[in-house]
Amino acid sequence: MNDGAYVGRSAIRREGSDKVTGKLAYVDDLILPGMIHGVTVRSPIARAKIKSITFAPGVPWAEITVVGPKDLPGPNVVKLIDVDQPLLADGEVRHCDEPILLLAHPDRAVAERARELVKLELEPLPAVFDLDAAIRGDVVVWGTDNLFREYRVNHGDVDAAMREPGVMVLEGTYDTGAQEQMYIEPQGMIAEYDAATGVTVRGSLQCPYYVHAALLALFELPPEKIRVIQAATGGGFGGKEEYPSIIAAHAAVLARKAGRPVKMIYDRIEDVMATTKRHPSRTTVRTAFTADGTMLAADIDFIIDGGAYLTLSPVVLSRGTIHAAGPYRWPSIRIRSRAIATSHPPHGAFRGFGAPQSVFALERHLDRVATRLHIDPAELRRKNLLRQGDRTSVGQVITEPIDLDLVLDRALAMSDWTAKRARFDTENANGGPLRRGIGLSFFYHGAGFTGSGEVYLASVARTEATRDGRVRVLTANCEIGQGTTTVFSQIAADGAGVPIDRIDIVAPDTALVPNSGPTVASRTTMVVGQLVRDAAAMLRSKLVLAELLAEDGDADAFARAAATYIDRHGELTAVARYSPPEGIAWDDKKFEGDAYAAYAWAAYIAEVTVDLRTAEVRVDDFVAVQEAGRIVNPTMAMGQIEGGVAQGIGWAIYERVVWKDGRVKNPQMTNYIIPTAVDTPPIRVEFVPPFLAEAALSKGIGELPMDGPAPAVLAAVAHATGTEPLEIPMLPEQLMTILEAHHG
Amino acid sequence: MNDGAYVGRSAIRREGSDKVTGKLAYVDDLILPGMIHGVTVRSPIARAKIKSITFAPGVPWAEITVVGPKDLPGPNVVKLIDVDQPLLADGEVRHCDEPILLLAHPDRAVAERARELVKLELEPLPAVFDLDAAIRGDVVVWGTDNLFREYRVNHGDVDAAMREPGVMVLEGTYDTGAQEQMYIEPQGMIAEYDAATGVTVRGSLQCPYYVHAALLALFELPPEKIRVIQAATGGGFGGKEEYPSIIAAHAAVLARKAGRPVKMIYDRIEDVMATTKRHPSRTTVRTAFTADGTMLAADIDFIIDGGAYLTLSPVVLSRGTIHAAGPYRWPSIRIRSRAIATSHPPHGAFRGFGAPQSVFALERHLDRVATRLHIDPAELRRKNLLRQGDRTSVGQVITEPIDLDLVLDRALAMSDWTAKRARFDTENANGGPLRRGIGLSFFYHGAGFTGSGEVYLASVARTEATRDGRVRVLTANCEIGQGTTTVFSQIAADGAGVPIDRIDIVAPDTALVPNSGPTVASRTTMVVGQLVRDAAAMLRSKLVLAELLAEDGDADAFARAAATYIDRHGELTAVARYSPPEGIAWDDKKFEGDAYAAYAWAAYIAEVTVDLRTAEVRVDDFVAVQEAGRIVNPTMAMGQIEGGVAQGIGWAIYERVVWKDGRVKNPQMTNYIIPTAVDTPPIRVEFVPPFLAEAALSKGIGELPMDGPAPAVLAAVAHATGTEPLEIPMLPEQLMTILEAHHG
Repeated sequence: MNDGAYVGRSAIRREGSDKVTGKLAYVDDLILPGMIHGVTVRSPIARAKIKSITFAPGVPWAEITVVGPKDLPGPNVVKLIDVDQPLLADGEVRHCDEPILLLAHPDRAVAERARELVKLELEPLPAVFDLDAAIRGDVVVWGTDNLFREYRVNHGDVDAAMREPGVMVLEGTYDTGAQEQMYIEPQGMIAEYDAATGVTVRGSLQCPYYVHAALLALFELPPEKIRVIQAATGGGFGGKEEYPSIIAAHAAVLARKAGRPVKMIYDRIEDVMATTKRHPSRTTVRTAFTADGTMLAADIDFIIDGGAYLTLSPVVLSRGTIHAAGPYRWPSIRIRSRAIATSHPPHGAFRGFGAPQSVFALERHLDRVATRLHIDPAELRRKNLLRQGDRTSVGQVITEPIDLDLVLDRALAMSDWTAKRARFDTENANGGPLRRGIGLSFFYHGAGFTGSGEVYLASVARTEATRDGRVRVLTANCEIGQGTTTVFSQIAADGAGVPIDRIDIVAPDTALVPNSGPTVASRTTMVVGQLVRDAAAMLRSKLVLAELLAEDGDADAFARAAATYIDRHGELTAVARYSPPEGIAWDDKKFEGDAYAAYAWAAYIAEVTVDLRTAEVRVDDFVAVQEAGRIVNPTMAMGQIEGGVAQGIGWAIYERVVWKDGRVKNPQMTNYIIPTAVDTPPIRVEFVPPFLAEAALSKGIGELPMDGPAPAVLAAVAHATGTEPLEIPMLPEQLMTILEAHHG
Repeated sequence: MNDGAYVGRSAIRREGSDKVTGKLAYVDDLILPGMIHGVTVRSPIARAKIKSITFAPGVPWAEITVVGPKDLPGPNVVKLIDVDQPLLADGEVRHCDEPILLLAHPDRAVAERARELVKLELEPLPAVFDLDAAIRGDVVVWGTDNLFREYRVNHGDVDAAMREPGVMVLEGTYDTGAQEQMYIEPQGMIAEYDAATGVTVRGSLQCPYYVHAALLALFELPPEKIRVIQAATGGGFGGKEEYPSIIAAHAAVLARKAGRPVKMIYDRIEDVMATTKRHPSRTTVRTAFTADGTMLAADIDFIIDGGAYLTLSPVVLSRGTIHAAGPYRWPSIRIRSRAIATSHPPHGAFRGFGAPQSVFALERHLDRVATRLHIDPAELRRKNLLRQGDRTSVGQVITEPIDLDLVLDRALAMSDWTAKRARFDTENANGGPLRRGIGLSFFYHGAGFTGSGEVYLASVARTEATRDGRVRVLTANCEIGQGTTTVFSQIAADGAGVPIDRIDIVAPDTALVPNSGPTVASRTTMVVGQLVRDAAAMLRSKLVLAELLAEDGDADAFARAAATYIDRHGELTAVARYSPPEGIAWDDKKFEGDAYAAYAWAAYIAEVTVDLRTAEVRVDDFVAVQEAGRIVNPTMAMGQIEGGVAQGIGWAIYERVVWKDGRVKNPQMTNYIIPTAVDTPPIRVEFVPPFLAEAALSKGIGELPMDGPAPAVLAAVAHATGTEPLEIPMLPEQLMTILEAHHG
């Protein structure tokens, strides 16, 4: 095995040229004969009985395919963790923009006009948007108590620690807002239906086998009669994890009724209004510290707003809970976490998956503790960081030889932390409208699913060699801009010992590729990448064992050997199936054990200028230092970190979802503001050398950079202004109020 | 007749509410059963032989309607002044983006994709884009000499005047660029074809009977089997004068072949690349003045670039020629004007119609004369302005009691001309990067067609009363944002002596309304408005003569009388037909006589700041003073002037059409920059009282404000910088070169 010829080097993005030249076909670029366009009629109000649906004149209704709940071929549910969510509201709507009816016409403009002419008579029912009101049960919108899921963690004696003499107890409540994924390409799907061959959908998605499972449940057909193909996908960030199942199902039932292929493409407004976002959260943190800054105990109450249906909220809650205590040594820890039902559109998967919310609360809180104890915030963290052999809050013993001091020290050095902090203090004391600040966060993020999750998935990757010595890699993992195709090519090239241009990554298509699990949870490189390497290496092993190829045979020798092997056996393929690392055990019931096979560790530092006159915050500089194993493609990994930092800065100070009566009022890029290149500071990314020298592949890095920016930026704002902002997004409107209260 | 109840007051825009609430249906909002979408395959190169056309795979071609020259039902020509232009290029293309083939499909996206898959094999032929090269005949692209049309004006002895002792002779050449109309709504049309009822088109247009005439020539059907309906139209500015005939014909032949209604809507890029623009021009002006600033003679050579086909260029050239000498007393004058063929897409109608080009040259030149004679530019004009009884350059004696001093004086007073001019001189002498300047233009603009034009049109307006006393006004004149509906309502209400809310303006539809001529040439209010007034007054006269109504009967009495009249006679209608004012005579052959029945007169003053570091020009203030008869609706008239000034500023310093090999390279609003509200100065509009106290209605004001801004702004730039810019558009890139040459 030519280990290391590609892994660790910045191979060029394999689909990059097709992207920049416009050759790549996204779903909206695909045209099928006879194809028509589907649109969705949605509820304008949050909770109501559907009294009647009528069709006003203005379009040729006879030309239009109409699908309601009665037209579904199987159960009217979105198959996910629970089955509480209908594909089309039947009799009652539970959130704004919930789908009610589907229409299709050959002319998209006609379908859109028809949608406006469907008249809904809705009788409003009480709705609830406020988390506290939902918890109190002022209005019950789900089950008997609006409680989707609750977890508890308990270790040591938190109450006793809080009562110890001389300890500093501090409590705070920290809020985070919803966040829109704002992938550049909105949701879209084309479906075909044929009685003989079944359902075929192709579209913008992260998880082909999730869509496959949802269609299987709806159409009640044998698995081979459901085919899901990923089209080129313009970003996901989690937003294309669960929602594509709905749009695929909608397009497919329209196609079945119309007898023609149906394309459904959401425009930006519909996409932002109707699809999932990051869960808003409220976290109350109470801690006990000794006067020298040693952690004694933490009591954390973590709540997320799940919206009107359960969707993935239990899993998001679980991730947020596991990360809530941070990479620190808490002698005593108690966590209670709850996912609550409200009348918002369901919240769902988004990069970080609950962890950014709980990490924000804890890190913001630790900064406030440092201020009160007059300890440098970096030194407060250092004193309490996990060391090899320590236990996490859920009881996982860290066996890896971690050196978190190294991570912290690199960040402090790169940002000139100590000198800048002192200088800004002096300058700010001199007054003037522009104040500067520097702030830090320290955090970790588990890679892949929790232990039991990966065991349950039992992912499979497959490789095939061709007679001309090419290696095809078959997985269900999707290129969504993050680099799967390139990284898998590097890994497979090293595994099979052939040049990267001999590798073909087969585009995900459930008719062709095995189920290697979803493209989520920072698992693609770490978990599936390992399977790809093994399956690629197995091809060469088979040739060597068959004595057709020398151990170090080159690409041409490989091709000759493969041809011979295929002539003899008909094919040369290999399959690798996930098996959990030894000694990793997670107990879902007790919510305890080895949550993840590996963690990435990071210290992020932000530098800001705050204009006291306008309350505008500008991030001037950003340092992102992490340990994430052996980086497969440094350029692309840095890009991932930079993108995540930008998205985290957006969540912290730019992006605010405005709802009115549960409906999004700012669903456009002109009024929901994500940071552009102009708003984004220089982001200085460093990966410290792997803690495990023998590390084969990177730990996941997709989600990691989403956790740290918000607390670092808010800490810098706090430093600059002498205030204690407790919530995000912190737009000028919000900061202005805080500044006015503080500066008078 | 309750004269003056409405005319002269600012009635509220009648369609305003529907516009701001989105109720108004533009052509792209219209949906007809079975409707499909048409697109146009165009030439990517300027001049070529068409060798072959093939259809690449990628769309379901069997679903697509394809129309080429062979599919036309009649002659392959755009019927206008000449018949040189084909509806679809046949064998040869003569300009970039010339239509070659038409495609239609129920799905617009499929039609657009299909357009990309039509492969054209083109053999390039020599093309010519440079005016001088075209005049020299380096490449002949039209006729034998590229000369579309030539006019000559000659009065007095110019050559002798130039040779007189002591005169100051100055010559200069002045260039103006193309300008895109940039109406907010691009071109669009829906056509239906039925063997029994013929062709019906509805769309965005200014001149229903022009489209009617074009379709008549193409389909060779009786007139009643061609029906043209104006849809709500989002701006025209001349751009929807001749081009709609082409898109209507294209949509109609597609509809005929497909057997289904066809919608064709250009997107912005196609609209800017393929449709007409203002003619670029080059004018050489040579003048003789006495030392005290008295005009002796002018010799003007005016050339416009007509593009590849003749279209309306002769008429544009005529207008530009008539206005070329300005409202001045030239003892001797000689004008030669030529419209030249090049390989650009044909240039066409645009607000001002040639006059802005020749006015720019003359006014820019007069400013240079004033500088050399050390005379204030305002006083140079004053000394030479026309007075009652004077002759214009084409020999029209001004019989109206004009007082142009009044117009000039108001503008000077409103702008604080003298004081500011002195102050800016002092400030600029002190140096610094920001230089200020103030500049003036004086001009006139004829209203309506030239004398013979209106006689030839013989416009008709019609009115009808209903049994409930409402008055319907039927004309072919279009509301295109300029206020026709409101102004006609005011005029008809006064004419019939009923409240304005009893007036209904019938939307132009050739099946319903008479031919009142095109909506162009500032003729709607002055020429057709008079017919509307007459026809409305005739309704009342008929009732009074029938002794059913007292002279001063109110609206209810009018309704009762109308009901009785209609019961007796079946209908109450009236028709008014244009007859030329007495004593107005224009000789087309000699290019001499009474060019227009009336002129509006104006002095415009611009104030600018020029940043010497960036060469950016900012217009800080603008004064627009004019005499234009009796203003029908002051608020809307001011709006017309303001809009025209903004468009004129755009032409002067923002808007530059960039061609490469004859193809527009900046066809979007992001790279072809029109001024926004932010770029537009305060525009202070004043209408001085009518010169004729008995004036019934306004002279035309649509085109007037296009003439004055460019020379005023350039004069201000010249004043600010001490340079002599000779061409527009004067973007920072161009001004930078001039400043560098001047300031080193």
